[in-house]
Amino acid sequence: MIIDCHGHYTTAPKALEAWRNAQIAGIADPKAKPRVEDLVISDDELRESIESNQLRLMRQRGSDLTIFSPRASFMAHHIGDFHVSSTWAAICNELCFRVSRLFPDHFVPVAMLPQSPGVDPKTCIPELVKCVEQYGNVGINLNPDPSGGHWTSPPLTDRHWYPIYEKMVEYGIPAMIHVSTSCNACFHTTGAHYINADTTAVMQLIQGDLFKDFPALKFIIPHGGGAAPYHWGRYRGLAQDMKRPPLKELLLNNVYFDTCVYHLPGIELLLKVVPVDNVLFASEMVGAVRGIDPETGHPYDDTKRYVDAIAWLTDADRRKIYADNARKVYPRLTK
Amino acid sequence: MIIDCHGHYTTAPKALEAWRNAQIAGIADPKAKPRVEDLVISDDELRESIESNQLRLMRQRGSDLTIFSPRASFMAHHIGDFHVSSTWAAICNELCFRVSRLFPDHFVPVAMLPQSPGVDPKTCIPELVKCVEQYGNVGINLNPDPSGGHWTSPPLTDRHWYPIYEKMVEYGIPAMIHVSTSCNACFHTTGAHYINADTTAVMQLIQGDLFKDFPALKFIIPHGGGAAPYHWGRYRGLAQDMKRPPLKELLLNNVYFDTCVYHLPGIELLLKVVPVDNVLFASEMVGAVRGIDPETGHPYDDTKRYVDAIAWLTDADRRKIYADNARKVYPRLTK
Repeated sequence: MIIDCHGHYTTAPKALEAWRNAQIAGIADPKAKPRVEDLVISDDELRESIESNQLRLMRQRGSDLTIFSPRASFMAHHIGDFHVSSTWAAICNELCFRVSRLFPDHFVPVAMLPQSPGVDPKTCIPELVKCVEQYGNVGINLNPDPSGGHWTSPPLTDRHWYPIYEKMVEYGIPAMIHVSTSCNACFHTTGAHYINADTTAVMQLIQGDLFKDFPALKFIIPHGGGAAPYHWGRYRGLAQDMKRPPLKELLLNNVYFDTCVYHLPGIELLLKVVPVDNVLFASEMVGAVRGIDPETGHPYDDTKRYVDAIAWLTDADRRKIYADNARKVYPRLTK
Repeated sequence: MIIDCHGHYTTAPKALEAWRNAQIAGIADPKAKPRVEDLVISDDELRESIESNQLRLMRQRGSDLTIFSPRASFMAHHIGDFHVSSTWAAICNELCFRVSRLFPDHFVPVAMLPQSPGVDPKTCIPELVKCVEQYGNVGINLNPDPSGGHWTSPPLTDRHWYPIYEKMVEYGIPAMIHVSTSCNACFHTTGAHYINADTTAVMQLIQGDLFKDFPALKFIIPHGGGAAPYHWGRYRGLAQDMKRPPLKELLLNNVYFDTCVYHLPGIELLLKVVPVDNVLFASEMVGAVRGIDPETGHPYDDTKRYVDAIAWLTDADRRKIYADNARKVYPRLTK
C-alpha cells in the first residue's frame, strides 16, 4: 500500500476555472457575478479528468491512494473578500469530495479553507466542520500567508491561528502548511513562494512554543520542508543559540516533511537528515513540475523512483514512508 | 591558499552599534542625531576586534584570506531614508577598509550599498565608486529587498537595478545577493529571510534574461544558494516547463554558490548537484550560527571541515573551491 499525501485537483474540468474567472470579474462588476448553480460538472467529467491524469499516473508509478485537496495555486485567498473565498472553497471542496466518492479506493479528501487576508481564521471553522463531518476530509491545507506573498498575517505560532488548531486537535486532523499563488512579483509561485513558505514555517515553529499549547497538533511541511533539511545544521545551530530544545524534541513529535523533492540527491539528503518516522511519501502530481528529466528519462515528480533508489532504506523504513507514517499523521484515514 | 568569500564585520567595537542606535533615535528626534565625527574607533580597537575573533578562527581553521563586508544584519536598509543609509554605509565601509589596511594579507573589503526602499539604486553609485576606487573593494553586497521582508522592490532582473549592474561590469566586481534584518514578524532574519532571499534570487534569475543584457555580470548566492541546490531537480524542471534554457546555460556562467551550509550532508548535496566551478568556499563566521555541533564536536560554521571530508573531491576540485573560483569571480582580487 502506497499513500501519496500530497495531491491537488489540478486537472479539474475547465468549467471550474471559467466559473472562478467569472467570480473574479464579479468582484469589480457585480453584474458579472456567477451563481454557484451556474457551475455544472458531471460525474463523467470528474471521472475522465481523474482517470486520464492522476489515476493513470498512480497506476503507472505504483501508488494506491492519494490524499487529495483543491488545487493549491487556485486557492488564491488574496482575491476578493471572505465571501468570495468562502464560496470558492465550498465549490472546490465539494469537487474533491465527489472525486473521493467516485474513486473511494484511490482518493481521500483534504480541505482548503476559506481564508482571507486580515479576516479572523475562526471564520473558516464552518467549512472545516462540514468537510470533516459530511465529506470525510482527513486533513486541511492551511495557508500561512493568505495575502499571497506579502506576509501580512502573524506567524503560525500566534494565537491568531488557535481557533483552527483547536478544531484540528478536536477532530484529529493534521494541516499541510501550503501557500497559494503569489501576487508579489518578487516571488515565483512554485519556484520561490512555495519553498519560502515551507522554510518560513519551520523557522516560525522553532521560534515559538506552539506544541506546548497543542502537543497533539500535526503539521506536514510540503516540498520536502523547503530549505530546512538542506540547512538542517543551520537550524539545529540556530535553535541551540536561541537556547531552544534540540529540533528532535522541539519539532519532530509534530512536524513531518513530504517527499516532493524532484531529484535523487535531494531525497537522499532528506532521508539522511530527517528521521524516517517524519517523512511522508508524496509527489504533488500533476503539479508544479510536469516534464521528463533528461538526466534520468523519467518524470521529475515520479518521486517513488528516488525513494526506491535509496539502497540503505530498510523495508520497514519504506513501509513507514509509504504508508505507516501517513496513517499516524492522518488518524481519520482508515483505508 | 584558502579564501573565505563570505565574512562580515560582526565583531566591530560596541561604539559602532551605539552610534547606530543614536542615529536611529535621531530619525524621530533630530536633537539626538549624532555627527559622523562622534564615532571614534582606534586602530587598536579594530585590531583587537579582529585578532580575537575572525583572525583567531581563520588561523585555527586554516583559512588565509576573508572577503570582508559590513555586518549584513546591521545594514537594515529599511531604517530611515537614503540619507540615513548613506551615512551608515559610509561609516561601515570605511571600517572594513581600515581592517583591510591593518591586515592586508587577511582581509579584502566588499562594500555595502546605501540602499533605501523606494529609492532609485543609482543613488548608490557614488558610494560604490568610492569603495572600489579609494578603498580597493573587490565586490559589493546587493540587497534584493531593502524593505526588510516586505519585498517591495522589483525582481533583480528588472531594469530598476541596471545602474548597479552597469557599474559592476565596468569595474569587474561581483555582487553577493544578501538581504539584511527582517522587520516582518513572519521571517526570522537568519533562519528564514536570508535563506528565502537566496531561493527567491535564483528563481528570479531563472525567470528573467538578465545575463543576456549583462553576460559578464557575476552574482554569488550565499548560504549555499538557499533552497536551490536541494531542489535542483525542481528548478531544472521549472526552467524546462517554462521553455527556458537548461540551468547550466541559463545560470552557471554567472551565478555562484557559497559553502555556508552548516552540516556535512548539505555540503555533500551542494557539491553533488552544482558543478565544482560554481562553488566558492565560505563560512560567514563569526555569524548566524556560533555554537558547537554536539553531533561533531566542532563549530557548525567550520565549513572547511565539511569540504575536506568529501572524499570524492579531487585536489584540483578543492583548489577551485578554496581559491581559484574566487579569483575568477573577484578579478580585482590580486592576492
